[in-house]
Amino acid sequence: MTGAASGRYWCELALVDGLVRPGVAIEIDGGRFRSVEAGTVPNGGHRLDGFTIPGMANAHSHAFHRALRSRTQSGPGTFWTWRELMYRAAARLEPDTYFRLARATFAEMALAGITCVGEFHYLHHTPGGTPYADLNEMGEALLAAAGEAGIRITLLDTLYLHGGLDAGGYREPDETQRRFTDGSADAWAQRVDQLRPAQTQRVGAAIHSVRAVDPGAMRTVADWAASADAPVHAHVSEQVAENEHCAAHHGRTPVEVFDDAGVLSGRFTAVHATHLTEGDIMTLAVTGSTVAMCPTTERDLGDGIGPTDRFRAEGIAMTIGSDSHAVIDLLEEARALELDERLRSQQRGIHPAGDLLTMATRNGHRSLGWDDAGVISVGMRADLVTLSLGSVRTAGASAANAVETTIFAATSADVTDVIIDGHHVVADRRHVGIDVAGELTASIEELMDA
Amino acid sequence: MTGAASGRYWCELALVDGLVRPGVAIEIDGGRFRSVEAGTVPNGGHRLDGFTIPGMANAHSHAFHRALRSRTQSGPGTFWTWRELMYRAAARLEPDTYFRLARATFAEMALAGITCVGEFHYLHHTPGGTPYADLNEMGEALLAAAGEAGIRITLLDTLYLHGGLDAGGYREPDETQRRFTDGSADAWAQRVDQLRPAQTQRVGAAIHSVRAVDPGAMRTVADWAASADAPVHAHVSEQVAENEHCAAHHGRTPVEVFDDAGVLSGRFTAVHATHLTEGDIMTLAVTGSTVAMCPTTERDLGDGIGPTDRFRAEGIAMTIGSDSHAVIDLLEEARALELDERLRSQQRGIHPAGDLLTMATRNGHRSLGWDDAGVISVGMRADLVTLSLGSVRTAGASAANAVETTIFAATSADVTDVIIDGHHVVADRRHVGIDVAGELTASIEELMDA
Repeated sequence: MTGAASGRYWCELALVDGLVRPGVAIEIDGGRFRSVEAGTVPNGGHRLDGFTIPGMANAHSHAFHRALRSRTQSGPGTFWTWRELMYRAAARLEPDTYFRLARATFAEMALAGITCVGEFHYLHHTPGGTPYADLNEMGEALLAAAGEAGIRITLLDTLYLHGGLDAGGYREPDETQRRFTDGSADAWAQRVDQLRPAQTQRVGAAIHSVRAVDPGAMRTVADWAASADAPVHAHVSEQVAENEHCAAHHGRTPVEVFDDAGVLSGRFTAVHATHLTEGDIMTLAVTGSTVAMCPTTERDLGDGIGPTDRFRAEGIAMTIGSDSHAVIDLLEEARALELDERLRSQQRGIHPAGDLLTMATRNGHRSLGWDDAGVISVGMRADLVTLSLGSVRTAGASAANAVETTIFAATSADVTDVIIDGHHVVADRRHVGIDVAGELTASIEELMDA
Repeated sequence: MTGAASGRYWCELALVDGLVRPGVAIEIDGGRFRSVEAGTVPNGGHRLDGFTIPGMANAHSHAFHRALRSRTQSGPGTFWTWRELMYRAAARLEPDTYFRLARATFAEMALAGITCVGEFHYLHHTPGGTPYADLNEMGEALLAAAGEAGIRITLLDTLYLHGGLDAGGYREPDETQRRFTDGSADAWAQRVDQLRPAQTQRVGAAIHSVRAVDPGAMRTVADWAASADAPVHAHVSEQVAENEHCAAHHGRTPVEVFDDAGVLSGRFTAVHATHLTEGDIMTLAVTGSTVAMCPTTERDLGDGIGPTDRFRAEGIAMTIGSDSHAVIDLLEEARALELDERLRSQQRGIHPAGDLLTMATRNGHRSLGWDDAGVISVGMRADLVTLSLGSVRTAGASAANAVETTIFAATSADVTDVIIDGHHVVADRRHVGIDVAGELTASIEELMDA
């Protein structure tokens, strides 16, 4: 994105400091909110009709999974058979094809009102496992893709060392997994230190999972993240089998292994956190850890329903991610968090709509290292997402229940305008720079059907 | 809808007799398919780009619930507290306001590719309970609304006699429920016999539930439906409490009560069927009964996940309905049936995409008494629903997985064209006769905010 990150807007209805307010005049200067005033009449600024909310953060993404949408939906299977299909796509990606696919995928996110993505990235090396001439060629392709798509990114550069875990210990990486591994945690840290993010980009750390990283290597990542004050994410207890293998070798749960290795802190986000013990939940709470729920993926892959009622009760911050991109719609993710809890508990209204929206906005940004985004308030990063309250989906809403309508009735198809760091990236339902559907089609056919 | 129900179309890709075929030339005459030929080049007929599927049938609808969308999403509660809010809307409806709301709601269904609705209707009398001058004024309003919206309707005129059931037996209707009751099953049958559906409309029967109808009255409805060869639907075991109250009074399950009363047959559809015994499932199977799953409603209301894996194993036909209209999107309903099963079983691919599409099309139409609809085939009713395979949601599909993409990636926002009984009701994403969003807004505000 180029051009001045400044401008004046007037919102018919907006969520300001957590409250639904009519007639909100907004001045943006240098990519931040300079003034936000509610109860005004149209002031000549660019008019945003509908309901304007803060920018949403996608806390967990694997951009290349977008190529698999609907292509993994034939035949019976499990998470593990799905992973075989995912590995086949992973084996084909090169920096140029990944750049094009990721740019289109991130642009689809922009159209859905996502202003920041946490990209959990582990396709570091060539398909055979040897390094690219530029060690970070794949990661740099992702940073460039986000830049062209106009969204902020936290590149969660992921340590992946081993091919799996069972009672006998850690296995060697298989053929596909060889491109994931740096060989050692120190080599990972050296490579990551060479990444050069742009001004609206950050580098964070990730530990793939207890299956792929041993406790000693985890500690290296935790130390790196502490010294860089960077976020650190990890897949945690997505599958029952993962817990069983961890118990067989380590004699403890994945959360316990991460905790012993010094990984858990206010900078840590546990992704999925589906199958936890009560002790795990208390450990996440006392360490100030965050969890990232990915409800549409967890439902698609048959992971199960995570204990979000318990997270709520213990004050654990929740964020949401579209993960495998079977769907890119954080409003659907947010309501799914509540709706899946209803399926389990047969109770309604565990997570209020306002809390679900906070997970999709402020909590997600914080989990990705952007404490200054996700709220429409003076001094914060100037992200705005406007939704139509007059589509066939949202018609019938009143201002009084605009948040409930946004979370429970709207979809990404209702997003009309998106401003990111002051740049108007989506205007009147179109990305200003990219033919998103066309680029998705071309990049996926190039990768999957060539 | 008026005008000639005839015409020529050319589909880029269509589901013909259950197979995905390119270049399908279609001739429609008198509202039915006269010829269907695949593998052709564009022939001058109206061109339908994208993927064309048969018309979808919404097997279970309460049209007025559309007014509650997002308005019931605040505060904690259960199915039963939700019902209090629903009753408040029910108490306000009059024939003119219901006509307007139902017309807009049915038009929203047309936009979503729904060509036929089963309207489970029990708001028969004035809010105080006295009859309208025309006994069927409310039901006729619904028939007229469907006619103006351009969709077929089976008016499932519902018997509702009692206010509830517990160990002490059946209770009197409360103030809101008085408008639901005809006083006796015989009075119900006499009133229903006076309904005058149009040519593309049918009248069927419904028994509200074991809570609202005693076994003797059930038998009257079953006899009426048998002599009319009409469909008969009933809410069955949506809630655990319903089963408990039924057991306390009748000493058996709701399915057993319906079975003893002679209700179960190939014309019967059990709606929800969430909490069943193994015996219930076998009884539904041996009687040839159908079930109607309403996954988005059952998730919204915290009903639980119905045993669709067992229905599949026993060969019980499944249909789907949008019920409370928290969402009107039969593609989302269809995939939810599979995805909720994944949440429970932690297995993928229980219900293949093709089977889910059959539930939404042919099975739904059969359950509503339209054996001649829901398939693109010579002689069948000429319903066509065209979806874009080039939206940001569906981009990346290939013809080989068009059905998987439709079920797992598309939403109602991807429906571009809808032809119903040969009439082009939705063209280029717009309803040809109704400003749907505007009418939804106006009719809901009139009802809820006046």
